[in-house]
Amino acid sequence: MKKHNFSAGPCILPQEVLKKAAAAVLNFNNDDLSLIEISHRSKAFVHVMETARSLVLELLDLEGKGYSVLFLQGGASLEFLMTPYNLLKVNGKAAYLDTGTWSAKSIKEAKMMGTVDVVASSKDKNYSYIPKDFEIPGDTDYFHCTSNNTIFGTQIKEFPKTDSLLVCDMSSDIFSRQLDFSQFDLIYAGAQKNMGPAGTTLVVVKDEILGKTGRTIPSMLDYQVHIGKDSMFNTPSVFAVYVSMLTLQWLKDLGGIAEIEKINEAKAELLYNEIDSNPLFEGVAATEDRSYMNATFTLTDDTLKDKFDAAWQAAGINGLNGHRSVGGYRASMYNAMPLESVQVLVDVMQNFNK
Amino acid sequence: MKKHNFSAGPCILPQEVLKKAAAAVLNFNNDDLSLIEISHRSKAFVHVMETARSLVLELLDLEGKGYSVLFLQGGASLEFLMTPYNLLKVNGKAAYLDTGTWSAKSIKEAKMMGTVDVVASSKDKNYSYIPKDFEIPGDTDYFHCTSNNTIFGTQIKEFPKTDSLLVCDMSSDIFSRQLDFSQFDLIYAGAQKNMGPAGTTLVVVKDEILGKTGRTIPSMLDYQVHIGKDSMFNTPSVFAVYVSMLTLQWLKDLGGIAEIEKINEAKAELLYNEIDSNPLFEGVAATEDRSYMNATFTLTDDTLKDKFDAAWQAAGINGLNGHRSVGGYRASMYNAMPLESVQVLVDVMQNFNK
Repeated sequence: MKKHNFSAGPCILPQEVLKKAAAAVLNFNNDDLSLIEISHRSKAFVHVMETARSLVLELLDLEGKGYSVLFLQGGASLEFLMTPYNLLKVNGKAAYLDTGTWSAKSIKEAKMMGTVDVVASSKDKNYSYIPKDFEIPGDTDYFHCTSNNTIFGTQIKEFPKTDSLLVCDMSSDIFSRQLDFSQFDLIYAGAQKNMGPAGTTLVVVKDEILGKTGRTIPSMLDYQVHIGKDSMFNTPSVFAVYVSMLTLQWLKDLGGIAEIEKINEAKAELLYNEIDSNPLFEGVAATEDRSYMNATFTLTDDTLKDKFDAAWQAAGINGLNGHRSVGGYRASMYNAMPLESVQVLVDVMQNFNK
Repeated sequence: MKKHNFSAGPCILPQEVLKKAAAAVLNFNNDDLSLIEISHRSKAFVHVMETARSLVLELLDLEGKGYSVLFLQGGASLEFLMTPYNLLKVNGKAAYLDTGTWSAKSIKEAKMMGTVDVVASSKDKNYSYIPKDFEIPGDTDYFHCTSNNTIFGTQIKEFPKTDSLLVCDMSSDIFSRQLDFSQFDLIYAGAQKNMGPAGTTLVVVKDEILGKTGRTIPSMLDYQVHIGKDSMFNTPSVFAVYVSMLTLQWLKDLGGIAEIEKINEAKAELLYNEIDSNPLFEGVAATEDRSYMNATFTLTDDTLKDKFDAAWQAAGINGLNGHRSVGGYRASMYNAMPLESVQVLVDVMQNFNK
């Protein structure tokens, strides 16, 4: 029996993608070689890389708008460093919004490179909301935010208008909802939520913003170096890029972001309605800032924990425990999670109340 | 028909490893979840990471000798930067041996961080030999070399004795031959030759050498940060680490490095004997510096190229073309390549001469 996988990441991927990925590990392209034992310079893999890059631009509606797509390594954590290296001018200043653990980590790395202005933070209430009344100083090189906070279950619904560059870590909600992606100058995302397995990082960057800091940038940290080599400056994470391509193709075939957004809304509404109507549970995040990817909630009576844990585990549910810094439960409902799995969880919650 | 895969990397992996990897993508540990959709913090994956790290120490005979093992991302190319970040003191100096394309790239990155003394180079003869008469100045923080040069087919047989730290990029020959690995203070290697698929980088570092540069090191580039988090500071490249673990286990079961060294010697001798005895071919690299991983050779009569290419392709051989900077042919015979495949190539060469 396949489990209902609510894991926060690495997380559920489409079944058909997993099947194709497994087949490619044995015999890729019917060429009698495994995907993972061919040259990354082979025609077959270059085609994979180019297809993945094109699909990203197509799905985000950024074709012909001056953006480059890269599949790098090191996760969002390395992007925390690459962002200031590429965008923070010598003696310049960056503005950051602090909405959780990952924002805080990005701020820490940027501070090693120069001046950082934390324009607002929701740390005062354990990151349970998204700060809204803040100003971005006019003299900042860029403004950085985290679109979705997996640990706390919050999500930015509207992004600020600003004259400085807009940078967003979309690791945990990219490809999940319709946005005007052209409002961003730099988007990055670890693959392991809505895009593929851990091991590659998506970077979408507006070409014209690069090369203006006055810094010497090490090759591996320089977006222009990677762009100049079509995302193959060095050997990419072949398997992770291939599976990302499959997942992006799956999303396109499904109808793209417009279609998956409807499904994601239906899943989130189903679960949040249950959290709000069932007296045994309560939500953690501020209602207007609730994430459609990660729903955080707690039991109103903690003594029921063992019984509830046994109930959802018996139903084949996996990965529902909350992060240690929040406690309670976290249901991650990424793109590949079917509505049926959320229904199973809701049924467990309803039966538990009866 | 499975091909005879002489690809320079990503390259051949053991068939049984590929089968286990494909199975894990569908159902890992019989837990009804894919390897690539479970949390990297799950017990099952933490066990994979710890097993892989232990196997490295065991195979290199470095257990209990003060070394830490990391599985990072970014390939050797990111290590070119991490090495000086972690070992080059402020106002210090590093010594580098230039034996090919990858050495030159490592030198370029180190020069961005401080003073680099290139103690010797074989660039004068297109890197066809390993320089031997050079001195490492006493005041260098570390000496860096590349043990095997895939493009040119050379390999360092004896490493210099030095009082400074000894750093080696072993991307293309680690786990292939017996060495006193404790002579090295830092070893790194991209996985995609003898260890696994592209997407993870092995780092073996002596703990006591770290934290002495006086530099501020960004978190993702700081070996001590990764060591402190048991190689899980951020989400690792799960699939690549798992397949590396399988390959290391395969090597251990085979008898370890002592056993694979015999097989590698047999393969290399078989091919080099043919290159030296067949009048249609000649070797590229200096005889005493020939790599046991990558044999480079050319046709003595270039007009035979099309016919020879047709002959080896008809025999099911893949990836024999030389790198563009050398031309001719390159037969990569990494650990997973069976002697039988080398025999097929030698048969093609012998028949071609008849």
